[in-house]
Amino acid sequence: MSIKAVVYGVGAMNTIATRMLLEKGVTIVGAISRSESKVGKDLGELTGLGRRLDVQVSNDPHEVFERTRPDIAVIAVNSYMADAVEQLRTCAEHGVNAVTLSEEALHPWATSPEITRELDEIAKGTGATLTGTGHQDTYWVNIVAMMMGTAHRIDSVVGHASWNVDDYGPEVAGDQQVGKTVEEFHAWLDGATRPPSFGRNVLDALVADVGLTVKSVTTTTRPDVAQQTMFSKALQREIPAGQVIGFTDVDEILTAEGPAFNFEMSGRVYGPDDGDINEWEIKGEPDLVLSNGTVPTQVTTCTQLVNRIPDVISAPAGFVTVETLPRLRYRAFPLHTYLKG
Amino acid sequence: MSIKAVVYGVGAMNTIATRMLLEKGVTIVGAISRSESKVGKDLGELTGLGRRLDVQVSNDPHEVFERTRPDIAVIAVNSYMADAVEQLRTCAEHGVNAVTLSEEALHPWATSPEITRELDEIAKGTGATLTGTGHQDTYWVNIVAMMMGTAHRIDSVVGHASWNVDDYGPEVAGDQQVGKTVEEFHAWLDGATRPPSFGRNVLDALVADVGLTVKSVTTTTRPDVAQQTMFSKALQREIPAGQVIGFTDVDEILTAEGPAFNFEMSGRVYGPDDGDINEWEIKGEPDLVLSNGTVPTQVTTCTQLVNRIPDVISAPAGFVTVETLPRLRYRAFPLHTYLKG
Repeated sequence: MSIKAVVYGVGAMNTIATRMLLEKGVTIVGAISRSESKVGKDLGELTGLGRRLDVQVSNDPHEVFERTRPDIAVIAVNSYMADAVEQLRTCAEHGVNAVTLSEEALHPWATSPEITRELDEIAKGTGATLTGTGHQDTYWVNIVAMMMGTAHRIDSVVGHASWNVDDYGPEVAGDQQVGKTVEEFHAWLDGATRPPSFGRNVLDALVADVGLTVKSVTTTTRPDVAQQTMFSKALQREIPAGQVIGFTDVDEILTAEGPAFNFEMSGRVYGPDDGDINEWEIKGEPDLVLSNGTVPTQVTTCTQLVNRIPDVISAPAGFVTVETLPRLRYRAFPLHTYLKG
Repeated sequence: MSIKAVVYGVGAMNTIATRMLLEKGVTIVGAISRSESKVGKDLGELTGLGRRLDVQVSNDPHEVFERTRPDIAVIAVNSYMADAVEQLRTCAEHGVNAVTLSEEALHPWATSPEITRELDEIAKGTGATLTGTGHQDTYWVNIVAMMMGTAHRIDSVVGHASWNVDDYGPEVAGDQQVGKTVEEFHAWLDGATRPPSFGRNVLDALVADVGLTVKSVTTTTRPDVAQQTMFSKALQREIPAGQVIGFTDVDEILTAEGPAFNFEMSGRVYGPDDGDINEWEIKGEPDLVLSNGTVPTQVTTCTQLVNRIPDVISAPAGFVTVETLPRLRYRAFPLHTYLKG
């Protein structure tokens, strides 16, 4: 029997995911958005499918879950647990499994322990599974963890990734300090009460996977500066040479057992030759490297949100992180054919 | 309690694996070799550990298994099921789990169905698990299958790998037709009753993992020719320009459902700038690529032979192929700590 899904958030990412869900034989039984311009509209028309789905966007998640009793909620609303807790708690309370692309949800036990424990308890009580997935699932955690499995001894694991600020609209460009002077950037950095950098959650997942003990955690941030005049599509203006086009977070975890983990992630305005990269290097016996060339991060976020659904439905109840899920598989057939039992 | 292992075959690969096993807290209780120059010697001395292990190499596997009752046999003896069946059958009959680096054992159901069925039945009867692993486990199967899991639609999967004929001695160099003329190569190819190419087993594993139906299987082989004079370390002689330095197998599987799988593997004499490569490209939605730079194939063969042991001991009885095992993990702690239950 087809999997019943509710689309939670109707933005750019769930517009792509809606089509993918339908193409994988999932029945979309509901859609939730807070946006007044979307509520009451048909999901098919809103997501450009060119046909009605007879699914009206609602702003009342409780009513939608009560009425439709879905197998899974596909959440694409926000990035941090402080915000994501609202949607995840609603799913958990209704006993609805959930996948979310909220980056911190990848492995939030250390960065938002209280929220995560609360969600875990509610979900265990109702039998729901909550999982943060997206691009980071395979490319920043599981493919790295698998390659680590081919080492005899690991001294260090170092990753580099980047994303294009211009892909995510003016608000994110502002958050990334695009167009600021270097002085303004450092003033902001000194005063900023920033949420955790996503690299931290990635390294937490890798360290948890191999059962090591965290000895120290550091995050350092440096501005990325325009070398020549650049154009920010998100801000619709030129950024002169010498001004900030984003920044790079470097997260590092040292472990009591020895291996050091380091992840450098840049979010900046891209030039014409830039693309999203994913590069990892393991030092030890032997030395190992991995590169995925130019990665279509937005698409691989949606594909993993969708392809993880059978794993999440089949997983134990609670807040379940991706390094504990089975190795991801291509879904050649309708998603429900991959459910256990 | 420490895992008890028997080292089956005492050549270059098990010399490396012996040290790795010891460093991962495995107790080596026996060693088996047919080589008269090795029988009776101490495994520690033979493998250059610089100390005795008080494990005398024996040429009688039945006696060793009866006496030591190991948890696992680590087999590094040969490449093809027609030969590997001897060691695997002995393990299965004694109820001893086994990992082997025999390349065809990676997924031998289609290329050696009768032998594999026989081994599967014996192993199921005694409760043993038999698995073919090595470099191909992660780099040619599981990492590719994982990346496939990040695609929405796959049209084709294309892999390129290479290995250095000079790493494997004069016999293998002869098998790879090094030093032949192109005419001699084609005469050999036309008449050769070659065993299956390993690429076939790799593609069989990938296709099995996603549950697709094989429509056609083809293997084509082309000579690799020296562009300038090269030196073959294995043969200890120069190969003039125009002569054969090895060959490239191109295996292809077309599936009834659509996705095409293609793997090109070159075994040739390397020039100074050559290294083992592992490159994969997926065409579909989206397009995806993977490269592991220069891969230390021999080391990653040994690491996977060792690191897979907990998975194989914990797996169901029978002939179990690697795409069905859990995602490989780095073993930071002694191997027995990863056993279930």
